This record gives sequence, structure tokens and C-alpha cells, in this order.
Amino acid sequence: MAEWTECMNFGITIARQASKVILEAFRAKKDVMLKSSPADLVTETDQRVEKMLISRIRERYPTHKFIGEESVAAGEKLELTDSPTWIIDPIDGTVNFVHRFPFVAISIAFAVNKQTEFGIVYSCVEDKMYRAQRGGGAFVNDVPLHTSGQEDITKSLVVTEIGAERDCLALCTMTTNIMNLLAIPIQGIRAVGTAAVDMVLVATGGADAYYHIGMHCWDIAASALIVTEAGGVVLDTDGSEFDMMSRKVIAASSMPVAKRIAQVVRAFPCTRDDEDPARVNNGGHCISSGL
Amino acid sequence: MAEWTECMNFGITIARQASKVILEAFRAKKDVMLKSSPADLVTETDQRVEKMLISRIRERYPTHKFIGEESVAAGEKLELTDSPTWIIDPIDGTVNFVHRFPFVAISIAFAVNKQTEFGIVYSCVEDKMYRAQRGGGAFVNDVPLHTSGQEDITKSLVVTEIGAERDCLALCTMTTNIMNLLAIPIQGIRAVGTAAVDMVLVATGGADAYYHIGMHCWDIAASALIVTEAGGVVLDTDGSEFDMMSRKVIAASSMPVAKRIAQVVRAFPCTRDDEDPARVNNGGHCISSGL
Repeated sequence: MAEWTECMNFGITIARQASKVILEAFRAKKDVMLKSSPADLVTETDQRVEKMLISRIRERYPTHKFIGEESVAAGEKLELTDSPTWIIDPIDGTVNFVHRFPFVAISIAFAVNKQTEFGIVYSCVEDKMYRAQRGGGAFVNDVPLHTSGQEDITKSLVVTEIGAERDCLALCTMTTNIMNLLAIPIQGIRAVGTAAVDMVLVATGGADAYYHIGMHCWDIAASALIVTEAGGVVLDTDGSEFDMMSRKVIAASSMPVAKRIAQVVRAFPCTRDDEDPARVNNGGHCISSGL
Repeated sequence: MAEWTECMNFGITIARQASKVILEAFRAKKDVMLKSSPADLVTETDQRVEKMLISRIRERYPTHKFIGEESVAAGEKLELTDSPTWIIDPIDGTVNFVHRFPFVAISIAFAVNKQTEFGIVYSCVEDKMYRAQRGGGAFVNDVPLHTSGQEDITKSLVVTEIGAERDCLALCTMTTNIMNLLAIPIQGIRAVGTAAVDMVLVATGGADAYYHIGMHCWDIAASALIVTEAGGVVLDTDGSEFDMMSRKVIAASSMPVAKRIAQVVRAFPCTRDDEDPARVNNGGHCISSGL
């Protein structure tokens, strides 16, 4: 693992640099354009930050590959190979960003042989730098992170997102999932509007679990490692092994909590991130979703 | 209005002092006791902070009256008279507090002749001191606050809470309200777990609206003034005039947004804060609810 420490430190440096562009725009008036739905806004800043991050990394590590939200939106093929690959979400929480709702994150994961070696989530407005290296623990602003260790679902606070997808099936599934969880009962539902921040809240112990369906690999690759390195577990929403391309995730303080959530949460159909949308007829679900 | 400025400044001073007790406990291991449901926790700190605030105020203003969450829970009658009255929630976001989810607020409103003269919401973990005095504008850490001014519901980000009440009718009503709003569509739903902070997020312009059913007067009296002094509007969920005792509220950036929310949001039955629960048969709805 140590061999990638220099890459991680470089990632942290450029995330801090990129955050200046985000914060400047966050505080100024923003021109936004609609992508495919009112909840799915993409901004000039989003594209600018991704280009900035990728060009800085490419300059230093010319052989490395990239998976980035904006590159994929622009038509680049999404493929995770065994090569060292940077998985980048320049602004996780685009809707928050547009509204100046104060949770916006830069998410950077780095995978080699399809295994995440480090993850960085920088919640810029809060100035909280979360990071984890495989086998090296998780930290926020250099303070070690530990999940709550909660094993009892009835004592758990759960984070999710509501309404990033808007078709009827997705909406009904999401609200039914919430009803089913509250009926267990759990202690509450929270939603701050960015998958990356939602998920690192589990790593801090502030929340006991997070689940979501429909987000993309770049939203959660970094925070998944941060959660596991903080002592938590990450699963698919069906209770099987986590697969960053499946667009379904449960992150929890413990296996019993994760498994109990998997028992009541149902997923709606989503095209995998690594499937070619041109080959797939999925009824339109989720293709354009994002936070 | 100016005659109450000294009281407001005193309220700010004691809120800062009380926050030290909250933050110390927030960072330590907490012993909690269950009130009536897993989502409805009350802590020793909650009671201690309320006693501390009330004794400090009583010492300085011996003729003033009080409405406090913990005093009412302990059986004191809730009555808003024309006398100068401090309306206090020592910890808004008790579930957050217990879990160390980082949004916890002290809420202090002050009413004379049943009119709110000032409101203070101190989001302690974030160290954000929100305040407003009637006719004097709203501020956070002395920086003026302005709502977004958004008039278009389809461009609005809406904050609410999910699951503070757990009976079937309340849960179904809340999820149906969310579905109806997302179907308009709005741009998203957020929930940070404290009514006071949810609502001041509208005053900052970070969210365009907030609505909730079932909270109490001490959760929202202060933030209601902060929203209106920041340029927003506050209504009952049925679109009528705001009544801090009705346990139903919409806070919004503009009247068109508030009215549109009132068209789709339905309330479940709630005993008014100023009704004597002993006289009322409301089927058990909401009596013990709280955040």
C-alpha cells in the first residue's frame, strides 16, 4: 500500500486547490444548465474542476487512467481496468452547489488491479478533508475516524437520499424503503444531499448507516474505502459483496446493521456503470441520475 | 423593538455559555433515556441546559415567564400570555445529539403580547449563531441573511423531517407529502434532523423552503422570526397565517413557493401546543413527538 502514498498526498493537494474554484463559484452567482431533470444540474464549475484535476494528474502520472463524472457524461467509455485509475467526482452534490446548500464534496478514489488503494473526500464548505488508504485507517483533517460500532438497527440513525431519481418506480421504491426502515423502527432518517458526505458521516460515527440506489461509482468509491478503514462494512443493497459499478450500496457501522437494512431495502432497476447504455434497454431508469 | 435588545444580547451570551455544556457532552459518551419512542430521546444534558438557561434569565428578569421543552415534558402548563415570555428549546436535535450527528441547536425566542420580539438559534457544533430582532433583519455570526428570493417551486430545494412521528397515519402522510412535492417536481429534499436548523437554512438562501408537521412552538418560534426577517414568509401548512402553537409550518423564500407547498402538503392530526392534552382525544397522534 505504501507505494501509493505519494499519489494520495498529491490527490489531497490538488483537491484543496480545486476547492478554491468551487468555493469561489459557490459564493458567487452561478449560471447553471439543466442536464436531464431539475434535480440533475451540471455546472460549468463541475466540468472545469474535473478538467483541472485530470490535467494535473496526467502531467504527473502520464500512464494513469481516469473515470470521471463529466468525462463519462461527455461520452467517454467507463471502464475499470487493472491499470492505476483515478475515479473522480469533481462536485458531489451538484444540486446543493447550485442552491448553496452547504454540503459539496470533491471525491477522488484510486484503484489498482480493480482494488481501491486510497480514497479522498473533501467536503469543501465545511473544510473537512476525509481520507483513507487501504490498510492504513481513515482520517478527517488528520484525526482518526471510527464508526459507531452500533450493531442494533433499532438504535441506528440512517442516511439516504430521496428523489435524485424521479420516475414513479424509483420514487415509490425509495419512499417504501424509508417506511419499512422507520417501521423496524430505526431512530431517524437524514439526507444532506451528497452521497460522498452522507457516507463519510457513517465513518465518523455520526450516522450508523447509509444506503442508496442509483448513484455512480465516482460518488462512492472513495467514501466506501473511508467507511471500511474506519471499521465499517460496505455491501450491495441485496446483501451481497459491494460492487462499485452496481449503483447500489449499504455502508454501515457493523455487519448486523448492514444485513438488516438489506432485508428491507429494495432496489429499482439501474444500468450498471460499466455497461454500455447503447446495448441496454432498461426502461430509462437511472441512466441520467446523479447527485 | 429596541427596548428588547438588551434581553437579546443576554440571550446570545447565555446560549454561548450553555453550548459549552452541550459540546462537552456531545464529545463524551452519553447516557440517554428513552422517552416514548426510539426517535424521541431525552438526555440529562437537555434538562440541565434548560434549567441553566431559565435560572440565568430568572435571576436577571424575575418577572419574565417561560415556555420550555423540558418544563412542559415535566408537566408544566404551556400558556403564552401577553407577559414577556422566553420560549426555549435547550437542545433542538436530540436524536442528532445522542448520535453525534453534527447539527444540534439551542433555540431561544422571546415574545411580548404574543408577538416574537427576537429569535436566537445557535447551531453549536457548526458554531453558527443565528439571530433576528423584529424589524431589525436577520444575521448569522453578524453577517446579514437573505432568503434566496426563489418564486418558482420547480427550482426549489426543500427541507423537511421524516419520521419524528411514527404512527402509521403520520408516516404515510409524510411520505405522500414528499412524493407529491417531488412530482411537481421540486429539485430535492434534505433533512438534517433539527427543525431550528432546517428552518434557518431557508433564511440563509441555501434551501428555498421548509415544512413540517408535529414539531412544537419551542422548535420553531425563534427560526420563524429569523426567516421572516431574512425576507422569507412563514405560513401554516394549510396556507393560513402562521400560528406557533398549531404544530404545522411552512417557511419559504417567497409567498408563491409557500402557497404551492400548502397546496400539496397534508397534515395529520396534532394536539395544539396550547391545548390541555387531558381534555383532548386525538388518537395519540403527535403528543410525544419531538426532534
